[in-house]
Amino acid sequence: MEKSDVAAKYFSPRVSDRERAAFEAGIAIGMAIHQFSGIPIRFEEEARLLEKVIEYAILSQPFKSEARVRISIDIPKDYNPYKYSTLRSRNMDISVVVRYGKAYVKARLRYVPELDYSLAYIEDIGEVDEKEAK
Amino acid sequence: MEKSDVAAKYFSPRVSDRERAAFEAGIAIGMAIHQFSGIPIRFEEEARLLEKVIEYAILSQPFKSEARVRISIDIPKDYNPYKYSTLRSRNMDISVVVRYGKAYVKARLRYVPELDYSLAYIEDIGEVDEKEAK
Amino acid sequence: MEKSDVAAKYFSPRVSDRERAAFEAGIAIGMAIHQFSGIPIRFEEEARLLEKVIEYAILSQPFKSEARVRISIDIPKDYNPYKYSTLRSRNMDISVVVRYGKAYVKARLRYVPELDYSLAYIEDIGEVDEKEAK
Amino acid sequence: MEKSDVAAKYFSPRVSDRERAAFEAGIAIGMAIHQFSGIPIRFEEEARLLEKVIEYAILSQPFKSEARVRISIDIPKDYNPYKYSTLRSRNMDISVVVRYGKAYVKARLRYVPELDYSLAYIEDIGEVDEKEAK
Repeated sequence: MEKSDVAAKYFSPRVSDRERAAFEAGIAIGMAIHQFSGIPIRFEEEARLLEKVIEYAILSQPFKSEARVRISIDIPKDYNPYKYSTLRSRNMDISVVVRYGKAYVKARLRYVPELDYSLAYIEDIGEVDEKEAK
Repeated sequence: MEKSDVAAKYFSPRVSDRERAAFEAGIAIGMAIHQFSGIPIRFEEEARLLEKVIEYAILSQPFKSEARVRISIDIPKDYNPYKYSTLRSRNMDISVVVRYGKAYVKARLRYVPELDYSLAYIEDIGEVDEKEAK
Repeated sequence: MEKSDVAAKYFSPRVSDRERAAFEAGIAIGMAIHQFSGIPIRFEEEARLLEKVIEYAILSQPFKSEARVRISIDIPKDYNPYKYSTLRSRNMDISVVVRYGKAYVKARLRYVPELDYSLAYIEDIGEVDEKEAK
Repeated sequence: MEKSDVAAKYFSPRVSDRERAAFEAGIAIGMAIHQFSGIPIRFEEEARLLEKVIEYAILSQPFKSEARVRISIDIPKDYNPYKYSTLRSRNMDISVVVRYGKAYVKARLRYVPELDYSLAYIEDIGEVDEKEAK
């Protein structure tokens, strides 16, 4: 358990640090998809700044220790008022690391062509000591 | 592991069913907050219908087996064009149950006055057999 | 000008009732698209309730007097955890009527195949007396 | 009318350039509020980048020629996992200029204490020649 965590008492005592970290990682990805999908994008610079904003937004919430966001989106070259892109989950590749107590989780959101789905999944999970010992 | 889960291979083999269920519960709550916050509300009936819509939206995503949403929001009694409410996370009380393989998680989002924060937490976690045996 | 409008003094005196009504109609459509796009949908009943919620949300904001929303979205018949729909602007057909002072505007959002774009446009605009006289 | 506007034929012929510009300005402000409200903010730099992202998002949509966004938000100084800010409409000060055909509209969104409301209003409207002649 994380000593400094004033909210720990609200959680079931059966929740392990790894389970808590997995929960927090899920929140981060649910937030990122549903907060940012729908943004109109016509400028490359906009996409680059938005990557940083999403990273900061993830890191603003509890126990997120690392975030990396890449946006891949086609931006029309020719100007037409009605031709621009709209950010969707399939345009986002998000990696987030949560650390809670002794545990860490590395989670990912990316479009998986085989599933035709933007899949949120856990790439790695374990104890921090173990990871730092690598 | 959930046999029917075509996406299981993308997850680290170290992820337990309980950890996966915790991750999915986190996604549900992150989605609910960031998708629905901001809706203008002037009608009681609107709030009631919105509870059901949020429940359906949660159940639309993978492995969510139960959802219950209550919205508590003050709606101005007197008509004034510029006086209406806006849904915020603190107005939402959400319970969601995820079942994955042998595990279940019961998660909650509710405003906790002590923290002045809408806390997402895990109320219960365990193995399904165990729960059904209760 | 709308006598009861306590915010009228913030607007340029050059703004006509029709221009104000057009402005308010634009806000309604911008709100509807960007608030509701992204909702996961797996249930027909969810889509029907959501139509009503969007109508109520539009009517919650200033000077909107009528709203009608239709959602057309394909919902997968077979159950697969990773197959569900996500509401996009192209799934929405929205009609909104704004009345302000002596003016009315009837605005629409719908997907226009010719443009491959969800176009927000003004179907009708005029003075209320004139309309009621029809 | 804007000659290059392939969507003009969908609008009622009764719509003036000024009315169209007012409509487009409303869409921009409705989009900005409902797309960006809810973003978690813990970092000053995040707020600064977000201002630029919102400006770009506004300029991505049809006929918006200028956008300026300022975010005023209190960011907690001491670190506490559960203390961060969430962007709301009252934190945004948005100016947008739409030009359509011969008309322009300058619209604004800002929190008005007297109304306790984030008011969207038209600061100026007119014909472009006139403005350029100033």
